[in-house]
Amino acid sequence: MDNPAKVLGSDFEAEMRSVDRILNRYMTSDSTPIISELSRHLINAGGKRLRPLLTIASAKMCNYSGVAHIKLAAAIEFIHSATLLHDDVVDESEKRRGKSTANFLWNNQSSVLVGDYLFSKSFQLMVEAESLNVLSTLADASATISEGEILQLSAVRNLNTSQEVYFKIIEGKTAALFSAATKVGAIIANTEKETVTALMNYGRFLGLCFQLTDDLLDYTGDEESFGKKIGDDFKEGKLTLPLIRAIEKSSSKEREFWKNAIQRNSPLDDGLEQALFIMDKYDTLDFTRNEAIKYSSKASESLDVFPRSDLKDTLKELASYVVSRIN
Amino acid sequence: MDNPAKVLGSDFEAEMRSVDRILNRYMTSDSTPIISELSRHLINAGGKRLRPLLTIASAKMCNYSGVAHIKLAAAIEFIHSATLLHDDVVDESEKRRGKSTANFLWNNQSSVLVGDYLFSKSFQLMVEAESLNVLSTLADASATISEGEILQLSAVRNLNTSQEVYFKIIEGKTAALFSAATKVGAIIANTEKETVTALMNYGRFLGLCFQLTDDLLDYTGDEESFGKKIGDDFKEGKLTLPLIRAIEKSSSKEREFWKNAIQRNSPLDDGLEQALFIMDKYDTLDFTRNEAIKYSSKASESLDVFPRSDLKDTLKELASYVVSRIN
Repeated sequence: MDNPAKVLGSDFEAEMRSVDRILNRYMTSDSTPIISELSRHLINAGGKRLRPLLTIASAKMCNYSGVAHIKLAAAIEFIHSATLLHDDVVDESEKRRGKSTANFLWNNQSSVLVGDYLFSKSFQLMVEAESLNVLSTLADASATISEGEILQLSAVRNLNTSQEVYFKIIEGKTAALFSAATKVGAIIANTEKETVTALMNYGRFLGLCFQLTDDLLDYTGDEESFGKKIGDDFKEGKLTLPLIRAIEKSSSKEREFWKNAIQRNSPLDDGLEQALFIMDKYDTLDFTRNEAIKYSSKASESLDVFPRSDLKDTLKELASYVVSRIN
Repeated sequence: MDNPAKVLGSDFEAEMRSVDRILNRYMTSDSTPIISELSRHLINAGGKRLRPLLTIASAKMCNYSGVAHIKLAAAIEFIHSATLLHDDVVDESEKRRGKSTANFLWNNQSSVLVGDYLFSKSFQLMVEAESLNVLSTLADASATISEGEILQLSAVRNLNTSQEVYFKIIEGKTAALFSAATKVGAIIANTEKETVTALMNYGRFLGLCFQLTDDLLDYTGDEESFGKKIGDDFKEGKLTLPLIRAIEKSSSKEREFWKNAIQRNSPLDDGLEQALFIMDKYDTLDFTRNEAIKYSSKASESLDVFPRSDLKDTLKELASYVVSRIN
C-alpha cells in the first residue's frame, strides 16, 4: 500500500508549501539566531507533517475555500514541535528520527525556551484565524497534552499503572493534538456540529491507534524500519499497554521479576527476553494489536457521515495504513 | 511610605480573593496530584501578585464593571508562574523568595511540564474573556517574553552584550508581561484607544523600572531586605546594565579583568570587589539608578491623561515606591 500520508502530501502540495513558508517565517528571529537554528534543526528534519496535513484535509472535507486553515495547520505543527522539544528534555533523549536532538546538540535550557517560543508563535498564528471556538479547542488540547505528559512522567517505573491511566496518557500525549488538528479544520469551515464531531473523532481515534501501534512496535518492530531500538520503553521504565496488561496478569513470581526489572531498575541482561516471554504467555502483544485495530476501524467509521470522495478514501486508507505495520 | 502594592491589595481584596479561587481551581488536577502540589508550592508561596493586581487596577481605572478582569488577572499570574518555573530550570536555581525552588524539590522534568500546564490553563482562562484583542495582546506578550529569555541566555558571559541588547532582554523578561497586564485590563473595559495606550505604557515603564532596580540592587542591595545574595548576577555571568556600561567604559587592562572574571569564569576571590570598584569609577551604578528613575517618572506621567482619583494616586505612588529602594 502506498503511504496515504504521502498521497495527502501530494494532494495538498501547494497548501503544505504555504504552511512551510509560514513555519519558516515565524521561526525566524533576527535578534536571536539560536531560535531559527534550533527550530529549523527540528522542524525541517523531514518529519511527515501529518498533523498539519490532517488540518488541511479536514478543512477540505468540509469544502472550506478560505486560507485560515494554512495558519492553523502551521500552529498545529508548532505545538507539536514545542512538545517534542520539551519531551526530549524530559526524557533526556539524544536521538529523534535518527538525528541528534536539540537538547543534545545545544542544551536543555535552549530547548525549554525555544519550545516556549514556538508555543507562543503557534498562539499568535491561531489568534489570526479569528475564531474563539478554534482558540478554545486549542487551549483545551494544550491542557490535555501537558496533563498527559505529566501523568506519563509520574507513571514511569510505577508497576501499579492501570490500563485506564495508560489510555489517559495517550489521549493526552497523542490523541489530543490529532483530534484538535482535524476539529479546527472543520470549525474554520463553519460546518454543522455533526461534521465537526465526525472529523474530531476521526483525529482522536487515529491518534489512539497511532500511539498503540507505536507502543506495540517498541516490542515487536523491525529496528531498521521502525527507526528506534526495540525495548526502549521497557529499559526506560515506560509502562505501555503490552507491559501493563502483562503485569496485571502476572503470577506473584512473575511480579517479582517486574519489580526487579522495572521498579528497582536492576540491570538484567536478559530482562527484555523475559519480559517478551511473559507478554507472549498472556497474549498481551495480541491484545494491544487488537486495541490498535479497533481504533483504526473506529477512525474509519467516523467518516461514514461523508459522501464518497477520493479524499475520504485516502483518510480511510490512512487509518488502515497505521495498523498495517503491525497487522 | 506604605507599600502601594499592599494598598492595592486591600483596595481589591475581594477581587484578589476571586483571583486566588480561580488559580486554585485551575491548578487542581485530580488525576495528576503533582500538578496541584508543585503549582501550589510556587503560587501560594506569598508572592505579591503584583501583575494580576495591575490588571484589576487597570480595569478599574477604566470604570470596568464586569467580571472578565478576574479571569484575565488569573491568566496573567499563571503566565508569570509558568515563566518562573522554566526560568528556575534554565538558571538551575535552588532558591526563590527564600524558599527551595520546584526544580530543586521535585525535578527539572516536572517543572518544565507543569510550567507548560500552567501556560495552557492561562490560555483557557484568557479564551473565556472572549476578546480577540485580549488574546492577540497576550500571544504577542508571550512571544516577546520567550524571545527575551532566549536572548538573555545567549548573552550569558558574553562581554559584547550591548545596552541595546540589555533593554531588549528586560523588555521581554519583565516589561512585556507588566504592559500586557495593564493593557488587557483596559481592553476588556472597552475604553478608547488613548486610554489603552496610557495604561499599557504605565505597565511597560513600571516593568522596565522594576527590572532596572532589581539589577541595580543585585550590586548595591542590603542582603536582608533584598532577599538575594549580592553579586549573584556577576557570579552567574549575567550581564546587566551596571556591568555592561562598565565594560564599555573600561580600559584595555580593565577589559582583561572582565575577560577573566566573566568570560573565562575564573574563580577570583576578590572579583566582585574589583568589579564594584570599576563600576564606581565609571559611575555606572548611578547611571543605572538614573535610568530606573527615568522610567519611574515615565510610568507616572503615562497616567496624566486620567482625572484625579485615589487609585491613580496609588498607581503613581507605586511607580515612586519601586525606585525608593535605590533612591
